Amino acid sequence: MSTELWYTERYEEHGAALSLKIREVLHREQSPYQNIEIFETEQFGTLMTLDGLVMVTDRDNFLYHEMMSHPALFTHPAPKRVLIIGGGDCGTLREVLRHREVEEAVQVELDERVTRVAERFFPELCENNQDPRARFHFTDGITWIKEAEAGRYDVIIIDSTDPVGPAAGLFATDFYAACHHALADQGVLVAQSESPLLHADLIRQCQSRMTEAGFDAVNSLYFPQFCYPSGWWSATLGRKGLAMDAFRIDAARAFTGTRYYHAAMQQAAQVAPAFLLP
Amino acid sequence: MSTELWYTERYEEHGAALSLKIREVLHREQSPYQNIEIFETEQFGTLMTLDGLVMVTDRDNFLYHEMMSHPALFTHPAPKRVLIIGGGDCGTLREVLRHREVEEAVQVELDERVTRVAERFFPELCENNQDPRARFHFTDGITWIKEAEAGRYDVIIIDSTDPVGPAAGLFATDFYAACHHALADQGVLVAQSESPLLHADLIRQCQSRMTEAGFDAVNSLYFPQFCYPSGWWSATLGRKGLAMDAFRIDAARAFTGTRYYHAAMQQAAQVAPAFLLP
Repeated sequence: MSTELWYTERYEEHGAALSLKIREVLHREQSPYQNIEIFETEQFGTLMTLDGLVMVTDRDNFLYHEMMSHPALFTHPAPKRVLIIGGGDCGTLREVLRHREVEEAVQVELDERVTRVAERFFPELCENNQDPRARFHFTDGITWIKEAEAGRYDVIIIDSTDPVGPAAGLFATDFYAACHHALADQGVLVAQSESPLLHADLIRQCQSRMTEAGFDAVNSLYFPQFCYPSGWWSATLGRKGLAMDAFRIDAARAFTGTRYYHAAMQQAAQVAPAFLLP
Repeated sequence: MSTELWYTERYEEHGAALSLKIREVLHREQSPYQNIEIFETEQFGTLMTLDGLVMVTDRDNFLYHEMMSHPALFTHPAPKRVLIIGGGDCGTLREVLRHREVEEAVQVELDERVTRVAERFFPELCENNQDPRARFHFTDGITWIKEAEAGRYDVIIIDSTDPVGPAAGLFATDFYAACHHALADQGVLVAQSESPLLHADLIRQCQSRMTEAGFDAVNSLYFPQFCYPSGWWSATLGRKGLAMDAFRIDAARAFTGTRYYHAAMQQAAQVAPAFLLP
């Protein structure tokens, strides 16, 4: 009889848990901010957890990373200056840099160790880190946004952890207002906004807070993401001086190399479930 | 310290598992076909498992049941005679009977005990079982279809368990051909077709087998379903003498009382992820 190793993440308040079968523990460290662990799973490739919460697996991260980047970039008429808050695994950054129009992608991640560990264990996600358009800053994203000059960015992506601890401020109205200020006209903000099944109130709150913060057209995108609680996830999009239907559809149709995203999916993903219709 | 009870379903071949926290075991029996268990969960209401596999929870079954019924019924121009194969928990039947055009809904479930247990523990799913349009037959669905007269049904719904054991035959080309024969012109077949993330090959196979079986326009619907493996599920739709875009959109827009489904969702759900585009 051989020993079985399982990693389990409990969704405590939802009385549920997800487990992945593990071949071996590849790495463990306590950074100044959190506990970073890397596992080799049986069926989902490499797994990264932060403080015991699943951040990314090789097998299913494409869903989240494609949906956090391409819809926002194809909503903007000409995205040149992109800011990513969080996103330490660099999977969102990789997708952003696949857009040729992008001249500069600034990533502001609090914990440098997450990025260093990702470079070692998720080389695919980090394959564009050497791109000369990429700039890395390891510091607090909230301060970064508040100190940004007005109109500095075309697209801001909030690729954060859950709204607890240091990430809670990333879901606040005054943070969204600071993002609005840091965006140029026709700017686009996209923020991960948790599970429609488990956190419908948080999604509604993100939408109303972005509206309060001055965004002109706000809605959410819905997509599957197995390794996050409930397997169903969302991102909420705010547009500054752009209509709800702003979309460079021809450019999206010509874009290749994605596994989930395509032009028609951008439109489909914006259709809310009946219980979240306005 | 209090004892914690967890129900766990292992997705063995995928090296993953889902667990739900349990308050108590409400019922357990061995029917002639399978082991039926009912649990009261902490956060997902009542749970039914068959041979250890999650079939339905109070909290998230609306996703599956709405998507197994309404898209097919609104694809058909005038659905009067509906056949459900499987569906013993009666959740799909309930949704079907919400369509006033339906004159007869025949449910053919192998295991009568599943329906009797559902009547006791899932009264909400069974609330339309007394509708005079509902007919129950507890017998083998494959034989039922093969013996059906030509053109007997307008819509056939295959609300089956996974393609192993007795349900394997429900995924075969000759079964789809028998469904085609049992459908009237402009008939619609819909079959649950597993997880896009875990079973993409099976979805492609369902599509090609329905096409081989004579269906004119075949595609799949994609939707979230937390309690099924990967939290992302599909249903595959075959149309007999109907175009891919057949859709009573005005009727769908006027339909109320759903929690996930609505007219725009029917269209959005048919957008395949890039890795499953034809």
